Amino acid sequence: MIKIRKGKKSDLPEILELIKELADYEHALNQVSVNLKQLEVDGFGKNPAYYFVIAEKDDDIVGMAFYWIRYSTWKGKMLFLEDFIIRKTHRRLGIGTALFNRLMDVCKKENFNGMCWQVLDWNTSAINFYKKHNAEINGKWLNGKLSKNQILSFIR
Amino acid sequence: MIKIRKGKKSDLPEILELIKELADYEHALNQVSVNLKQLEVDGFGKNPAYYFVIAEKDDDIVGMAFYWIRYSTWKGKMLFLEDFIIRKTHRRLGIGTALFNRLMDVCKKENFNGMCWQVLDWNTSAINFYKKHNAEINGKWLNGKLSKNQILSFIR
Repeated sequence: MIKIRKGKKSDLPEILELIKELADYEHALNQVSVNLKQLEVDGFGKNPAYYFVIAEKDDDIVGMAFYWIRYSTWKGKMLFLEDFIIRKTHRRLGIGTALFNRLMDVCKKENFNGMCWQVLDWNTSAINFYKKHNAEINGKWLNGKLSKNQILSFIR
Repeated sequence: MIKIRKGKKSDLPEILELIKELADYEHALNQVSVNLKQLEVDGFGKNPAYYFVIAEKDDDIVGMAFYWIRYSTWKGKMLFLEDFIIRKTHRRLGIGTALFNRLMDVCKKENFNGMCWQVLDWNTSAINFYKKHNAEINGKWLNGKLSKNQILSFIR
C-alpha cells in the first residue's frame, strides 16, 4: 500500500509544494526562497548537494525524508536529516517509521558514521518518536545563523 | 604576520592533531574515530565532503575553520561551519575574525544562501563573538543523533 523509494527529479514539483505547505503551516512561507530550477540543479547534477526518499501511496507522495551528508571532524560522514514530513492526512500509519528505517538502511549501505537531525523543543510527538528509536536528544547546543543579506551587507 | 589560506591535503596531519587536541580538552578524545586516510579521501577526492581554511603564522597552523555545504529546503546551499579552532596561545589577536571574514567571502564567491553553525550554550565568549557579527543565536532546536553502532544494532 505504502511504497518507500528514492526521490527522483520528477518528484521535485510535489516536494517543493510539500516544503511550502509545511512552511506555511509554520507561518514562514516568506522564508522559502528556494525554487524548482535550483532544486533540480543542486540535487541532480554531478555533485548532488542533497538526497531524499519518499513514501508513495497510489502514486501520491504522502511523506518524505530530505537529507544531505554532514562531515563530523570526529566521526567523518554522517547522514543529516534536514526535513521529515508526513502529510497530515497520513499520520499514525507507520509511514514515519518506514522512512526512518530506510534512512538507517542508507547509513548502512553508504557506511555513514551515524545519523543526526534537529527537532524543535516543543515538538513532543517527534521527540518521542526519536526516543523510541533510542536516539540521543541533546539540548546543549544553540544554532547560529547569518543570512545571505547579512553577509552581503556586513561592514568590516 | 598571519596568513589566511585555503586548506591543503598536506595540512591534514596537523589538522587532525588540532581536532584531537580540542577533543582531549573536552574530555572526549575517545569519540574521535576519524583518521588521516579517511580525511584525505573524503576531503580531496572528486566530491569533497568538507573544506577548510587555515590561519598560518611562520608556517605553523594557529587556527582553522572547517566547513561543508548544508542544504536547506527553504534556502538551498548554505555554508555550515563545523569546527572553528584558534590555538590557545594565539587567541585575542583577531585570528577568529580573519577566519570568519574569509568564510563570509567564501559565501559570497560561491553564492551560498547564508552561513550557520552550532555553539555550546555555556560558551559565552564564542556567543559574544558571533553576536558582534549580528548573528542570530537560537535555542529552540534540540540535536538528535543515532550512532553507527546504534544503527547497526537497531532491531525492527
